[in-house]
Amino acid sequence: MQTSSTARRSGTSGACVTRKVGLTMKNLPLAKVYQLLEPGPVVLLTTARNGRANVMTMSWHMMVEFEPPLVACVVSTADYSFAALRATKECVIAVPAVDLAQKIVSIGNCSGRNVAKFEKFGLTPLPADCVKAPLIAECFANLECRVVNSRLVSKYNLFVLEVLKAWSDPRRRNPKTIHHHGYGKFVADGDTFRLKSRMR
Amino acid sequence: MQTSSTARRSGTSGACVTRKVGLTMKNLPLAKVYQLLEPGPVVLLTTARNGRANVMTMSWHMMVEFEPPLVACVVSTADYSFAALRATKECVIAVPAVDLAQKIVSIGNCSGRNVAKFEKFGLTPLPADCVKAPLIAECFANLECRVVNSRLVSKYNLFVLEVLKAWSDPRRRNPKTIHHHGYGKFVADGDTFRLKSRMR
Repeated sequence: MQTSSTARRSGTSGACVTRKVGLTMKNLPLAKVYQLLEPGPVVLLTTARNGRANVMTMSWHMMVEFEPPLVACVVSTADYSFAALRATKECVIAVPAVDLAQKIVSIGNCSGRNVAKFEKFGLTPLPADCVKAPLIAECFANLECRVVNSRLVSKYNLFVLEVLKAWSDPRRRNPKTIHHHGYGKFVADGDTFRLKSRMR
Repeated sequence: MQTSSTARRSGTSGACVTRKVGLTMKNLPLAKVYQLLEPGPVVLLTTARNGRANVMTMSWHMMVEFEPPLVACVVSTADYSFAALRATKECVIAVPAVDLAQKIVSIGNCSGRNVAKFEKFGLTPLPADCVKAPLIAECFANLECRVVNSRLVSKYNLFVLEVLKAWSDPRRRNPKTIHHHGYGKFVADGDTFRLKSRMR
C-alpha cells in the first residue's frame, strides 16, 4: 500500500482531517463496519502516546451497534497498550489477513514496553484522519476509534469504542482472516456461502 | 444426542444440580470456554421464562475473562429474548456447527413472540444444571450462563455473563463453526494451523 504525498498526520485528536490516506486506501461506509468485526477475526490494535506508536494483538472484541458503529473490546491491564488507550481515548483497529499470521503471533508475544513493534515487524504506519494512532498499511481494513464509554474499564478492562472513520484496501478482494482458538491454534476462513436471510 | 434417564431440570436457578445431562454430553473445564467463543462463531442463545423456552441467533459476543469465564453479549430490545434475559438473568449459549447453518438462519428470521422455535426447527432441549434455560442437544457445546453485570444494558443492551457450567459433545471432533458477514453471507471454518505462541 502506498501513501499519498498529501498524507499528513491529523493535528488534533478530536476533529477529523479529510485527505487521502493512501493511493490505494478507500473510505469504507460506516454502515459496513460490522461486517468486518462480527465474524470475530483476530485484529491488531494500535495506539499512540507521546509520539510513540504501539500495536497489540486482540481477539476479545464485539460489535455493539450498527451505526454509528460501536465496538466493545477488552484490553488487559497487563498489556502495555492499556495505559495508552485509557489516557488518549483513541486507537485504530486494523484487520489483518492470513498472510500476516506469523506477525500477528509475534506482535502478541512481546510488549511495547521494550520493543518498537512497527519497526521490528516491518509494519508501515499510516497517518489516520481522526486519531493519532496509526493505520497499518499491510492490513486490508483499518478503523479509527475513540473511546466513548469507560464505565466497565475498572471492573473488566472493557472499553466501548465508536468507529469514526473506516478504510479498506480495494485491491484486497475477499481477504481471509484468522480466528484464535487458544495457545497458538488458529483457524483461517474457509468456504463462503449465502443463505436467504432477513437478518442484517 | 440422547438424554440420560437421570436427567432432570434444576429446581432452583441459583444452585447447580449435578447429574448427567446426556449419555454423550461431557463436562468441559471452565478454563477452556474461551477457546470456543474467542474465534467469534455464530451462536444460539436460549432463555426460559414462565416455563417457555426460546432461542435466538447471536453474533455479537466476546470473552471478557478467562476464569471464571465471563462473556459479554449484546441482545437487542427488539429481540423477544431480551425481556427474558433481563428478567431471569439466565441463559445458555449453545455453539452450533456448520451442519446447522440453515436452522441458524431460520431461527434468526423469526421471533419467539409467535413461534415455538424448539418445536418448529426440531431442536432438542436438554435440562441444564444451573439455569432453567435449556441446552440444545444438536449443538456441540453448551454454556450455562448467569447475568453478573447489567450496568450497560440500558445504554447498549450489553450484558456481562458468567459461565457457570460448560458442556461439550465428545463425539464431535473438530466441529467447524460459521461466522456471519452480514445479510446471509457466512464463512465456515477452514484450515487449522498452529504457530508457536506464548499467548493463552
